[in-house]
Amino acid sequence: MKFNKLVIFGVGLIGGSFALALRRANAVTEVVGFGRSEPNLLYALSEGILDRKGQNIAAEVNDADLVLLATPVGQMAELMARIAPHLGAHTLVTDGGSTKGDVVAAAYANMGDRISQFVPAHPIAGAELSGAAAAAADLYAGKKVVLTPLPENSVDSVERVRKAWELCGALVSELTAEQHDTVFAAVSHLPHLLSFALVHDLARRGNREQLLSFAASGFRDFTRIAASSPEMWRDICMANRTALLGELDSYMQELEAIHVALSDGNADKLQEIFSLAREVRGNWTQQ
Amino acid sequence: MKFNKLVIFGVGLIGGSFALALRRANAVTEVVGFGRSEPNLLYALSEGILDRKGQNIAAEVNDADLVLLATPVGQMAELMARIAPHLGAHTLVTDGGSTKGDVVAAAYANMGDRISQFVPAHPIAGAELSGAAAAAADLYAGKKVVLTPLPENSVDSVERVRKAWELCGALVSELTAEQHDTVFAAVSHLPHLLSFALVHDLARRGNREQLLSFAASGFRDFTRIAASSPEMWRDICMANRTALLGELDSYMQELEAIHVALSDGNADKLQEIFSLAREVRGNWTQQ
Repeated sequence: MKFNKLVIFGVGLIGGSFALALRRANAVTEVVGFGRSEPNLLYALSEGILDRKGQNIAAEVNDADLVLLATPVGQMAELMARIAPHLGAHTLVTDGGSTKGDVVAAAYANMGDRISQFVPAHPIAGAELSGAAAAAADLYAGKKVVLTPLPENSVDSVERVRKAWELCGALVSELTAEQHDTVFAAVSHLPHLLSFALVHDLARRGNREQLLSFAASGFRDFTRIAASSPEMWRDICMANRTALLGELDSYMQELEAIHVALSDGNADKLQEIFSLAREVRGNWTQQ
Repeated sequence: MKFNKLVIFGVGLIGGSFALALRRANAVTEVVGFGRSEPNLLYALSEGILDRKGQNIAAEVNDADLVLLATPVGQMAELMARIAPHLGAHTLVTDGGSTKGDVVAAAYANMGDRISQFVPAHPIAGAELSGAAAAAADLYAGKKVVLTPLPENSVDSVERVRKAWELCGALVSELTAEQHDTVFAAVSHLPHLLSFALVHDLARRGNREQLLSFAASGFRDFTRIAASSPEMWRDICMANRTALLGELDSYMQELEAIHVALSDGNADKLQEIFSLAREVRGNWTQQ
């Protein structure tokens, strides 16, 4: 399978890596990119991520085989409204958003009768880096991509989008958008929120330099994700806030129970909590 | 400087690595070990970590130059009471405990007029591994060790203990025990508690296997420390619970504020929190 023309909106880590991976698989002929940052687009051109900068959205998406929406999630609704009327009959659209309920809602609100051409996707290849300079042909190699197909999608459309991600080296699975958002609130969005919160809490202290000077490898790993893009994570948290609030409530109850155990000097309770956590974490291996 | 005889209580990651590092520096003649696990001691003998297993505590500590207490912190009070009456006049004692206020209190309560011979230390070389098999000669190389000297210590005693840790390759600094415990509650103990709490929260769910199957690198790093020893961290949390409760209170207020921002859909507030966290975490480098 080969895509003659790929149009990418947002030529950063996700979009740029998608282009590079499909190029390496010899699965794309021409890559056209749109983005807000001119220096970033010029860099992507100079590095061979893009063949051309796009000028006219309507013209570019009309004869594209595949369109990737790789902007922050918060910008996708407007983008969908702009591209939908101009999509060719065989143009497929996928995205790289980390949340799906909101993206699907935006698609229903903005893509009209072109909804069947949109196959939502979430590539699980987070990194704290951003911009075209962070793009890599092997970003998706061995990583999971979750598709959340719509009832309106044809089997063939889902297959072609699946194939595109597989050509990038990804392991593709499917969930409903709701399942997706619940799962990722728990295993991704909440940990990011908690990591940002810890660093923010320390950052406001008068003795923060002293504190940070004694921080070691545990702190380093726990807070690695607090170096992630604030704008991207603001959008993700806002987009998935219902599920995320549920997870935050659950976690705060967990901390409340730990607070009681600590206050009471209940060492057995602490050990019980730590032991189950260690067992489950020890048995987990990244797939 | 050379130590003719080193006695280690607890021949695990901390104790075993101390012995290996001093051996590599050609700074110790004989290493004698005590421990609860016979197979672990036999392993330490077979790997050349120890020269001998100790039989008689009183006799062994009497002519030792240096004694390292590397058991869990919860066992140190009893151990101090057992060794104190038998320490030679020039025997120095240090420890590897991750908390210092409780260890110092135990020393005052149990070491009597030998208190001047105890120079408390905390090597910051955490790892989720334990036992002699995890010991390594380079564990302390370039890592920090915090001494919390007592007013009773002579300048010479502090210098000799400092030198022992420096011979292991460590970068030695000094704090009061109280400063130490406040700092480490914030940058180490709280992150461990939060990491254990997240995994425990997920571990109790009916769909935990599905959740964990979609967990990726952010989760991996955030929860690496949840694979730490439950027994050790129970002891650390209990030992430092006053400072830790203070940090937990502060963090729960932080989460409360984030909860309000999320509930209100206050994207600016989230971005403000994430941005400060990213800036501070981005500028931090492990020293």
